[in-house]
Formats: sequence, structure tokens, C-alpha cells
Amino acid sequence: MKVSIVGASGYTGVELIRILSFHEKVSLNQIVSRQFAGKKLRSVFPHFSKSRYEDLIFDEEFDLDSDLYFLCLPHEPSLELVKQLTEKGKKVIDLSASYRIKNKNAYPEYYGFEHKYPDLLEKTVYGLPEIFREKIKKADIIANPGCYPTATLTAVYPAVKEGVISGDKIVVNALSGISGAGRALKQQFHYPEAFGNSYAYNPVKHRHTPEMEDVIKSISGKNIKVRFTPHIIPVSRGMIATVIFETDLKKDQLVELYRLEYRYEPFVRIVSRPPQIKDLIGSNFCDIYVDFDEKTGQAVVISAIDNLGKGASSQAVQNMNIVLGFNEEECLKDISLSSILFP
Amino acid sequence: MKVSIVGASGYTGVELIRILSFHEKVSLNQIVSRQFAGKKLRSVFPHFSKSRYEDLIFDEEFDLDSDLYFLCLPHEPSLELVKQLTEKGKKVIDLSASYRIKNKNAYPEYYGFEHKYPDLLEKTVYGLPEIFREKIKKADIIANPGCYPTATLTAVYPAVKEGVISGDKIVVNALSGISGAGRALKQQFHYPEAFGNSYAYNPVKHRHTPEMEDVIKSISGKNIKVRFTPHIIPVSRGMIATVIFETDLKKDQLVELYRLEYRYEPFVRIVSRPPQIKDLIGSNFCDIYVDFDEKTGQAVVISAIDNLGKGASSQAVQNMNIVLGFNEEECLKDISLSSILFP
Amino acid sequence: MKVSIVGASGYTGVELIRILSFHEKVSLNQIVSRQFAGKKLRSVFPHFSKSRYEDLIFDEEFDLDSDLYFLCLPHEPSLELVKQLTEKGKKVIDLSASYRIKNKNAYPEYYGFEHKYPDLLEKTVYGLPEIFREKIKKADIIANPGCYPTATLTAVYPAVKEGVISGDKIVVNALSGISGAGRALKQQFHYPEAFGNSYAYNPVKHRHTPEMEDVIKSISGKNIKVRFTPHIIPVSRGMIATVIFETDLKKDQLVELYRLEYRYEPFVRIVSRPPQIKDLIGSNFCDIYVDFDEKTGQAVVISAIDNLGKGASSQAVQNMNIVLGFNEEECLKDISLSSILFP
Amino acid sequence: MKVSIVGASGYTGVELIRILSFHEKVSLNQIVSRQFAGKKLRSVFPHFSKSRYEDLIFDEEFDLDSDLYFLCLPHEPSLELVKQLTEKGKKVIDLSASYRIKNKNAYPEYYGFEHKYPDLLEKTVYGLPEIFREKIKKADIIANPGCYPTATLTAVYPAVKEGVISGDKIVVNALSGISGAGRALKQQFHYPEAFGNSYAYNPVKHRHTPEMEDVIKSISGKNIKVRFTPHIIPVSRGMIATVIFETDLKKDQLVELYRLEYRYEPFVRIVSRPPQIKDLIGSNFCDIYVDFDEKTGQAVVISAIDNLGKGASSQAVQNMNIVLGFNEEECLKDISLSSILFP
Repeated sequence: MKVSIVGASGYTGVELIRILSFHEKVSLNQIVSRQFAGKKLRSVFPHFSKSRYEDLIFDEEFDLDSDLYFLCLPHEPSLELVKQLTEKGKKVIDLSASYRIKNKNAYPEYYGFEHKYPDLLEKTVYGLPEIFREKIKKADIIANPGCYPTATLTAVYPAVKEGVISGDKIVVNALSGISGAGRALKQQFHYPEAFGNSYAYNPVKHRHTPEMEDVIKSISGKNIKVRFTPHIIPVSRGMIATVIFETDLKKDQLVELYRLEYRYEPFVRIVSRPPQIKDLIGSNFCDIYVDFDEKTGQAVVISAIDNLGKGASSQAVQNMNIVLGFNEEECLKDISLSSILFP
Repeated sequence: MKVSIVGASGYTGVELIRILSFHEKVSLNQIVSRQFAGKKLRSVFPHFSKSRYEDLIFDEEFDLDSDLYFLCLPHEPSLELVKQLTEKGKKVIDLSASYRIKNKNAYPEYYGFEHKYPDLLEKTVYGLPEIFREKIKKADIIANPGCYPTATLTAVYPAVKEGVISGDKIVVNALSGISGAGRALKQQFHYPEAFGNSYAYNPVKHRHTPEMEDVIKSISGKNIKVRFTPHIIPVSRGMIATVIFETDLKKDQLVELYRLEYRYEPFVRIVSRPPQIKDLIGSNFCDIYVDFDEKTGQAVVISAIDNLGKGASSQAVQNMNIVLGFNEEECLKDISLSSILFP
Repeated sequence: MKVSIVGASGYTGVELIRILSFHEKVSLNQIVSRQFAGKKLRSVFPHFSKSRYEDLIFDEEFDLDSDLYFLCLPHEPSLELVKQLTEKGKKVIDLSASYRIKNKNAYPEYYGFEHKYPDLLEKTVYGLPEIFREKIKKADIIANPGCYPTATLTAVYPAVKEGVISGDKIVVNALSGISGAGRALKQQFHYPEAFGNSYAYNPVKHRHTPEMEDVIKSISGKNIKVRFTPHIIPVSRGMIATVIFETDLKKDQLVELYRLEYRYEPFVRIVSRPPQIKDLIGSNFCDIYVDFDEKTGQAVVISAIDNLGKGASSQAVQNMNIVLGFNEEECLKDISLSSILFP
Repeated sequence: MKVSIVGASGYTGVELIRILSFHEKVSLNQIVSRQFAGKKLRSVFPHFSKSRYEDLIFDEEFDLDSDLYFLCLPHEPSLELVKQLTEKGKKVIDLSASYRIKNKNAYPEYYGFEHKYPDLLEKTVYGLPEIFREKIKKADIIANPGCYPTATLTAVYPAVKEGVISGDKIVVNALSGISGAGRALKQQFHYPEAFGNSYAYNPVKHRHTPEMEDVIKSISGKNIKVRFTPHIIPVSRGMIATVIFETDLKKDQLVELYRLEYRYEPFVRIVSRPPQIKDLIGSNFCDIYVDFDEKTGQAVVISAIDNLGKGASSQAVQNMNIVLGFNEEECLKDISLSSILFP
């Protein structure tokens, strides 16, 4: 099978090249990047020297020789490209947000454009395998989830599915490494300014909130609101979501519920102390810790992922493995370089 | 006036020496540290060379020549020392937790010791000047607040005081630099392991929770519960508290409430974008951002401090300035070294 | 006395504002920045709120009301401005490189422009007070040294002056925090890429080399060549220069030579273990460690500074204090926030 | 084939477990650690959950069931264990320094112990495959090189071998991430103190110097002295060696010499800009940049490695692959997670 990466020079594209370098069932047919068109992979990114695709040359335009396309583009170009590729019968895994939300009215408000293809939106499957695996198997268009929604939804799915959340809202505080903001230069991410710094941003209106609420509704049928505050932390990669919700279950029941739901999942680990991002970097795992605050009657569920791994590129490969019928774990077994002790 | 620092070799003690090096009204009479007894300040901490107290020698035991004592000791030794010094008529500013909580029953549960001096506990004033300035002026024992309580209480005080919090709980997620854990060596704070790492800890039972609830009750008379999740972020200094509570006020009303309450405060700044910890490092400021989530009906108040500054040592000096009758801002005008742009 | 900062929004300009906020003898008359013209200091840089110059408004153009001008501009605009201001009888401290090198032929090769004002170049004094203090007192134009030359020249000056360097070359390896590259955005300084990274750059031809060689020649009369390799380290501020040269002196003699030379210097500290950059951040000190390798017959001299402090802005203030006849230490007594133990 | 790791809980031991988790030709028979004896790998290091050896239990003592032993122990215990294992006919790869230097007189001076087994020292092969591959194939005892010697020797080998270094000394300045100092807690590596810090250490007498000089002599027959200054940089992993030596060759000749020497090496890459440590993390590569300073007549060779990779554990696996007759690249194809652009 042949695959292409369109937008291959951003962080998610480069991470896809790294992962696919070890995939035994697919070959990387094309890497597309206007910025680097005509250059060899190894001359732009020297760390790929002496690896499988070192001599691959960035193309300016995509061709139609591949079976599946990873789109690592901004939202609007992706909107169009999904349509073009689908019409040619190609499978598409879209890492942008352009097909993530079923409710098309959310796009103008949160992304600033009209969604012109509601029919395609309807057919798109949200690529969170732990929730939608069966649908992913048959999908033509897979909307690869945002990093915050991946961490948050994996942390609430068992509770949402079993209907154990009391009330109509959850509070999510999340921390993200800066690679989540992409490779485009910004003053606040210039090293001397981001070094040693941390802050909340978009505290009442973040684009990923409707994506979370949309999926929660599709699981539960309920309008559960997400009070979401994202924070920047000064690391390159890594993400934590701390989720608080009211519930009548106690700690043991909650832990049991989560263990049961995820018992066969290859990439979800229920851990016995709050997860540390260093345990996840470079891997496709999502670690989840479950606790209960007796005093306030609230569950505290904390999840962690690599925002470029399970939060983007390795999850995209997991989706590819599913939709192309490979072993879901193929080339996704990397262990974090971490050397963290259990505190 | 003469002052002493007992436990002068930990992070808060060293920061006190740095700040007091520029205080024109007090002289540092004694720095006490068993570990470094007999050594000159500059030989242990070379960065003090060519500064005011470079030749001061660490003493093994404290004498009684000072007017005021800063205690930078573990909780239990501090418990005793406060008593001894008070009996000699000395003013004490205690940076440990040993006199912070009025309810003496909290000590065995949260700190593992019985509080033997309930009478002194009664007389102690909680050293958060923005709330208890008038009492601090006349205090003999000042319990210098914990860093998390400082950030959180400053963020909720106007709302608590005016009774605009609906319901009986608030959700606080906080981020702390690692200096907050002190200078004692621990595996999880060994550089190669803490580098690039972040995680929640003590997610349902942190020692600072009763301290917060105790003060909130003393202001409001109500039992408002704090759902508190602290997180480690990989910086040396800096702290953020993101506070969520239900309220009927809207954004403009909330901002107005906060501006009004803090309008004469020299060290509280109401800021127009979420505060960044780099704006605070080395200063005594607390920056507060106020917002409202229309969708969930919740206020989002975000505060930031330097955990060793307003969260410990510079706040202790602010308390000293108040109790000794100096200008409250004396030697506390440092500006952060930050070069952060408004994003 | 009134002073102006032209180019007040870069790192060195902002650091000058911070330092001058505490200067009792001068008032900051004007801060000039095209980018932020018309905006208040505190609205662009919120960490200046509640400080002395918070309400100062950035001007688009400089006026002639000040006695002394700090130029924090790119090299070519600075070249012209120095001329204009000098003609009006103003004192100028130029933080660019445009007047640093006496040999005007070096400019086209290293900076890409012809130096049009050799007469002004002749009159300019190189603003390294430890070497040129007497000349600085009477200067009209002070070329504030580069950060690498400051660290290197301070480390070699006693040896060069006393003629104890054998042979005709020294080897300098230097490490610099990223703020040394300024505030302009570059891909390699985007946080996710610079995080955890380090590398040498310009390994055989760095702009600061002729500046170093020029000053060494002016002291010794000899053409001593500098083999200079700079490296980026992933911190915001801080610089180390490790200097190796052949000599017949032994360790004790070298240490004695350095102690003697710098015995009255307020900002040079001869330290007994290799200097740590955290001891210098935010200060105007230069720490120097002197050793001798018996096996190879080479001196090893290691210096450290804050590249934005002694390497730029606080050194500029030191020069101002000298040229305007103030106490040289005025408002330059900051102690690093460090809490480093002697290892 | 079965292998054991003795001292499996330090950084090099844990990294070996990670790498060997993907080796198809050997099985990890035993992980030995007194500290964690009786505990499962995944309970001590949760990031190994759901990986191949997650259920392996740390043993207190080693058994004799394996074919090859990796020793990740302090120097003195390793000295003895090599002897014991060799007597039983086992292959040993020793990651300590206890057999690295042929000259046994260096041990008391640099390591503080007498080397009791000069006969074994004689038989030991120094495990730098790029230099000693043929000897490694037949070795029973392989002394795995130190990280600084690996970076330095790889950078000088072609020049030393071809005799193009003029004079009798080279100057090496090296930068190391803190994991190189191991997992034992030290004040200067406590996160709040190491954060943002950098400094030289052991500037005239570092233990790795005789190891370098010993190998250089064994290649060239000459006593070339190494003037070595190591520096700590605030990252977890990564190492750079900047090597300066006099030579009559020009840049093109030097580059050609290095390309030729290393043209068949799978893990050495001659790069066209100074290497960046992020290109190496988690990999077994050594990147080398070669340049020449016309002005001083000196070569500038800069190499970079992951100190825990090519500088320790992955090099140990490379040695194992050679001595056990496997494909030398087996399970060593990891690509760094880097996303660094060519600047």
C-alpha cells in the first residue's frame, strides 16, 4: 500500500515520516511541501540521514498514486483537499479540524469559515479508535482528533458512556507543550520569551471545546458543557488534561469502570499515580489516573498524552492501521525515552 | 531595627537575604543554619559576593538580639520556636505552616503532628496583607501564607467577600515551579527526570486545601469547599492558580468588583490577558485576570505569583514592613527580568 | 539629567528601562520604538505596571531634549544616528556594533557595510570600563561592547596586559543563552525546536572575533589571534567563555595576577570554582575562574556574565554612570535570583 | 541468546531495557537491581507498561543463565564482576570505567582504586566499533567507552590515524546533558538549581582525559595530550565535543579525509552544518562537522551524540550485535524525535 503526506514539513508531518519509516506494510510514496519542494528529506531535516526515506524529495503538488493521504494542512486548504481526494476514491486522514465537528454551524464561529461540504461532513468518522473503532474500519474520511479533545475525551468516555456524570457540565484544565501550536513563528513562542514561562490562554473560548462537546453528545445524547481552560507549559511535547465532574460513584467504582472499559485497549493504560508527560513522549499511549474527592463529591480524572503522538501523528497511523486492515499496533510500539521513577 | 533569619540556607531563607540586602530600615543581625554554621555567606553562596551581607557568618544557634525573626524551618521545629521567641517578646514571621490553620484538628490529619499551642494559634494573624492588613499591624505572630493559598485566596477574595459565589464549592487547578518543593533532594526533582516533565500530584488531598478553606470561612462565614489539583511544571519559580466558580455576575461586573477591591493595593495588578509567570519572577506582585464563561455560567479567575516572592519571602518582608511600621513597599519594588510581549 | 532609549522595545532596550527605573540621578525622558509608537509602556509590557515608568508612551521619533542617548538599534541605523546626535553635542552609548572596531576595513567583511565616519570611529571609546575607564570618562561616543567580547576580554585582559601569553593565539569556546540573538523571530529559536537543543554556530567566522582581536591589539600591541567557537545553550540569559592560552606562569601566579589586576573593580569577582551563569543573571557582575593545566602548559580561564547585563544593558548603564560622573555602582547592585549551592 | 543487565535501574540500565525490548535476536533474561528487587519493571517504571518486558521482575542477584552480561554498575563492583563472569566463560560488556584504560597506573590517580586484574585489562577490547570493530568481534570483555571519549575520539580518529595533527596537543571543549552524571541525587542537579544554569567543571583534571589519551596513543603511537574542559548544559540528554587541533590540511582535504574514513559506517554521519543535539537524542548516531580556520591554521571538528545512546547504552548494544554476530544495526535504527530545521 502506498501513502502520501500532504503538508509534510510541519511538526505533525515530520512526526508521521518518522513513524512511517518503520512501518512494514506501507510505503511512503510522496511527501508534499511547497516550502521545501525539490529538496531531499535529509537535506532539510538532517536527523533523517541514514534512515529509510532520507532520499525522498519533497514534491510541490500531490499526485494520485497513493491509496491513502495524510493531510497535515491548515483548516481551509484541507477542507477542499478532502473533497478532491474523496472524489477520486482515495482514503483520507485529515489532521486539520476541517471535518471534526458534525454541527456545521460551529465552523464560522470557531474557525472563521463556512463548511461547504455538509454531505462529506456527514460521512466523516471521528478518528478516536477507543470510541469509534468499528466506524473507522469502514471510513473513507477520518477526521483525526485535536490533541486536547483526544486527552479529554479519553478521560471522560467511560463515565459519559455509562451515564455516571451528575449535572450538565465538566471542568477541564489542560496543559500543553508548545509544539501543539505548530511550527509557525510567534513572538510568545520565541525561546527567550517562552523559556521559564507558563500561562492560561483563550480561557473562555477555545476552538477545541465544540469538538469535545460534539463527541460527548454523540456518545451520551446529552448536552454536557465543557468548561475548558488550556495552559501553555514550557516543554516541546506533552499534554495533561485534568477533568473534574460530579458523580455518585466512589473511587473504587470509578477505577473499576475505567479498567473494564479499556481492558482490551492496546494504547490506554490506567495508572496508579497521576500520569507524567515524560512517560508518553514519542509513544502512542494515553495514560489515565482516576480518583474521587470525598469532600466535594467529584471525580478527578487525569490523562496524559504526547500531543504530537496520540494527540496527532501516531493516532493518525493507528487510524490508518485500522482502516487499511493492518495490526493496529504496527509500528506504534515505541516506548518513551523517560527515566522517571515512581515518586 | 534588627532582624534574624532562622533556617537561612533554604530557598526562602536565601531569597530573604537577597531582598533584605536592599532594605534601608532594618539590618540583618543573624543568619542561622546548622548546615553551614561557621561559614561566610559568600563562601556558601558565591552570588552574594560584593553585596551587603557577603561577610555575614552563618550561626548554629539563634540569639535574642533581634527585634523580629523570620522562621524558614520545617513545621515542627517552627511550632516550638514560635513559642520560645514569643515568650521573649519577639515578633515572629513564620514561613512554615505550623500556625496557619485556626482549626487545630487539621494538623494531625494534614501535617502529622498535634498542635500543642492552641492559645498561640488563636493570637496568630494570617499574613495575607490584602485581606488582613489591619490585624497584621498589631500582630506578634504572623503565619506567612503558603504559596498555593496566596495565589488562590487573592484570586477569590473579592468574590468571597462580596458573597457572589453561588453554590458551595470552587474548583482550583494550580501550576507550580519546582522550587516550591524546597531544597531537599528527591528523585522526581533530579534534573534529568524533571526536565521536560509535568504532572498533577496529591490530586485529592493537598495540605494547602484546609488552609484555603479556613481563610475563606473566616471571610465569608461559609463552608466553601475547594476542589484543588496542584501540578508540577518544569520551571524553577512561578505559580498559576486557575479558579472556577458559579456566579450570577457577568464579566464586566466581575472585573469591576475586582478592580474596586484592589484599587489601592500596591502589589495586586488586574491584568487584561491571562497572567504569565515570567511577569512575576523576582517581584512581590500578584497578577489577576478575571473572565466569565457565558456558556456554563462560571467565573474564570486566573492569578499568578512568584512562589518564592509573593508566595513566600517577599510577602514575608511585606508583612515585616507592615508590622514594624515601615513603608509597605520598602525594598519590594523589583521588576521581573521578563521580556515578554503582549501576545 | 535626562536620557533616552532609541530602539526601546528589543531585549536590551527593555532591560535598560528596567534598570533605569531605579536610577536616582537620571530620568528617562523618552523611549523610542516605531513598532509600539503611541502605546504606554505598561500596555506593551505588563510587567512594568505599577513601576516608575509605567505610563511612559513609546515615541516614533527621538527628540533632542536628552543629555545622553542609548542606541539599541541595528548596526546601520545606529551608524547614522551616532553621527546626528554627536553633531548636536549629545553623549551617545551605542549598543550596536557600528563603532566597536577601530579598523574600518573589518566592517564590509563582517557586517556588510562600509563605515562612512572614520573620524567618529577614531573618537569613539570602547566601553569596557575595566580596561578603558579613564577614556570613558571623557568620551562623547561610547561603543558598548558585544557580549562575547565582554566575557572574553575580561578573561584575558590581565594576561594580555602583563604579556604572559606565549605564542600568538588563544582558543575561546563560548556558550550563550538565546536572548543574545535578539527578539527577531527565527525558526531555530522557535521554542519547540530550541527546547533541549544545543549546537555550535559560525564556527570559523563570527562577527565578534575582530572586535576581540582589535582590543587585544590595542592593549598589547601584538596580533594575537582568537580561535573562537560560539555555542547556543537552551537558556534565555547567560554566557560563559572558556579561554585557553599557553603561558609560563603557574596556577598561583595566574590567580595572583588576576586578583591584583581586578582588586578594586566593583563588578569583577575572582571565584574559586568555575562560575555558574545563574550566579550572574540580572546582575552586572563578571565572574572569573583561573586555573592552569600542568600537563599541557596552558592556562584555563573561565568567565561568566549575563549577556543582557554586563554583556549589554547594565554595562551600558555602568558606562553612563562613568561618563556622567555618578557613582559607578548606582542602581547596579542587583543580586542574581540564584539559589545555587557551592557544589 | 540470553542477556542480563546488572545494575538495571540506573539511566544506562533503563535505556538498555528500552532498546532491547525491540531486539529480535536476544531475550532479556534478567534485570538485576538491589534497590528494586522483587518488583515488576512496570511498577517501578510505568512507562514500560504494555511493552515486551513489563512483567519482568528485578532480581537481587545475577544468575549464570545468560550468554552475555551488561554491567551498569559503579567502577569497583564492576571490576570484580567482570572477573567472576569471565571465569565462568561469559561475555561481558562493562559500561563502567573499570577496564577502559590499558595503563593500570591511571586507576589510583583518576579513580581511587588499584586495578587488581592487569591480565584481564590486557585482554579487554575498547568498545568503540568505528575504531576497534575487528577486535570487538572476538572479545570476551568489552569496555564500553565513556560518553566524552566516544564523542571526542570519533571526532579525532581520522586525523589521528592519518597523522595529520601537527604538534602534540588538541583542545577539546565539551558540553554534556545532566543525565551523564547518573541518577544519584546531588544538590547541583536539583531541578530548581540546575534550571537555566550552565558551567564548566573539573576544568583541568577530568577522569575521561586519560581514557582519550590512551586510545589516541594506541592508534597513533604518539603522546598527544588532550586539554579537556567539560561543561554542564541544562538538558537531560545530549553531548557536543568541539575539537581544535593544528594541521596543514585545508577544509576540503579534512572533509574528504573524514568522509572517506567513515564512508561505510552505519552510525557516523558527516554533516554540513554543526550538529545539533536534538538530531541525536534516542539514536545511536554520531554526527560530525569538519571545518578549518584559515586565520589560525587550526581544524575545528565538532561532534554530537546522545550521551545515553552512542555514549552509553545503544553503543553497548552495537557492541553486543558485533560480538554475537548479529546485524550491527539490529534494533538501533531509531530516529530522533527532533523537528529541527536546517537553520
